[in-house]
Amino acid sequence: MSLTPPAIILDAPQLGENIGAVARVMANFGLADLRLCRPRQGWPQPKAFAASSGAHWPLDQARVFAAVADAVADLDLVLAATARPREIPTPAMTAREGASLLAAAAAEGRRTALLFGGERSGLETADIALCRAIVTVPVDPRFSSLNLAQAAAVMAYEWRLTQDAAAPVAFARTETPADGAALRGLFEHLEGELDAAGFFHPPEKRAGMVRNLRALFSRAALSDQEVRTLRGVITALSKGRGRVLAKLAAKRPSP
Amino acid sequence: MSLTPPAIILDAPQLGENIGAVARVMANFGLADLRLCRPRQGWPQPKAFAASSGAHWPLDQARVFAAVADAVADLDLVLAATARPREIPTPAMTAREGASLLAAAAAEGRRTALLFGGERSGLETADIALCRAIVTVPVDPRFSSLNLAQAAAVMAYEWRLTQDAAAPVAFARTETPADGAALRGLFEHLEGELDAAGFFHPPEKRAGMVRNLRALFSRAALSDQEVRTLRGVITALSKGRGRVLAKLAAKRPSP
Repeated sequence: MSLTPPAIILDAPQLGENIGAVARVMANFGLADLRLCRPRQGWPQPKAFAASSGAHWPLDQARVFAAVADAVADLDLVLAATARPREIPTPAMTAREGASLLAAAAAEGRRTALLFGGERSGLETADIALCRAIVTVPVDPRFSSLNLAQAAAVMAYEWRLTQDAAAPVAFARTETPADGAALRGLFEHLEGELDAAGFFHPPEKRAGMVRNLRALFSRAALSDQEVRTLRGVITALSKGRGRVLAKLAAKRPSP
Repeated sequence: MSLTPPAIILDAPQLGENIGAVARVMANFGLADLRLCRPRQGWPQPKAFAASSGAHWPLDQARVFAAVADAVADLDLVLAATARPREIPTPAMTAREGASLLAAAAAEGRRTALLFGGERSGLETADIALCRAIVTVPVDPRFSSLNLAQAAAVMAYEWRLTQDAAAPVAFARTETPADGAALRGLFEHLEGELDAAGFFHPPEKRAGMVRNLRALFSRAALSDQEVRTLRGVITALSKGRGRVLAKLAAKRPSP
């Protein structure tokens, strides 16, 4: 077990018991980095510690965030665990394929995580759009409501299986991956320029258009260098053309 | 899903909540035959129904037995799920190997089951001796205490994978993918605007920069709609800002 296991991010978990059950599962399968976004009952919660059956360390170290975007800021690869099909252009893979992807990334020193939604509400599409891919557990469609800790157990189990097997084959890519903060900077830069250009029209469609653009770039597994390039592209397109027009205007003879 | 799934046998389960959680897991993965040996709090237990989150049918049909030997009497192949090595000449296998064995037996019309011990005591060696093999889940030896429902979840998940390994069809992307001509149109549009904006500098680096941008967008597996959206983005950034500047210039008082 030399690779750094994925972090577990719980978005808006409702019940302390479930947070504790997730911590126990993490300990069972060798995970430790627990991140909580907006826990409904606050943090720390005594019920979580009681439900962990002694697996206190993920809870002791747990960090609380105000938003998923904050929780993923230092991460290179995040997979969204959700059973629900979404109208969002993010690719889906099996739990096993997802675990392989996490292990391959970890073998390259990447920081990875699995993102789980709240017990009732699931994940918001805006947060799924921040993820490289969706991972699904093949549940019976007649009763697809998987308990949070069970979903975490299956994913953590699949992660651990990757560590029992031979070391994963490293991918050819060697660039530094863009982390969540870098992507966020890119998104905000692009969306700010598009706002200035009047691109989002009509206004009520803005949220969906933003989500789809974010999903597209999240899916692309951008490197740090590529994020810088894209920001240069945005700047060039938005400012450069202005400069060209200004030059043309300056050359035009005054009336 | 044509094969009969394995029964789940719980020996001396202590807590109704755990029986209910197991029932929910069974429903999640398409299992239905629940057998209880000597449940500590009797049967039926209201807490089990409450914890099942609506997965009542395994509980409604549950049969109660006085001994494991009775519960397995009509079964052809029983695997004992336990994390503990025992001084007993029963072969051990992984959860995945066990699921394969169950599926192979079910395909031959054999009646199969997975046997789980109580929360604290585990399985007795006399009962393990009734089983074809032991199946183990690869837990971290530093915290090997797997919750009963989690152990059932991992085994039921592995069973279901033998029946349904493919990613859910609902997740298949339905958008029309962008073909080579659409991508070429996107590339030439982007590169033309970047040329106009003076982005490619110095000129001898243009070919490499173009190649890297094209690779980035090719990797993203764009849909036709996304190509149209990105062309709108390029137009908005390059022309929109120009319009904004032009408007500002128009408002400026003439000298």
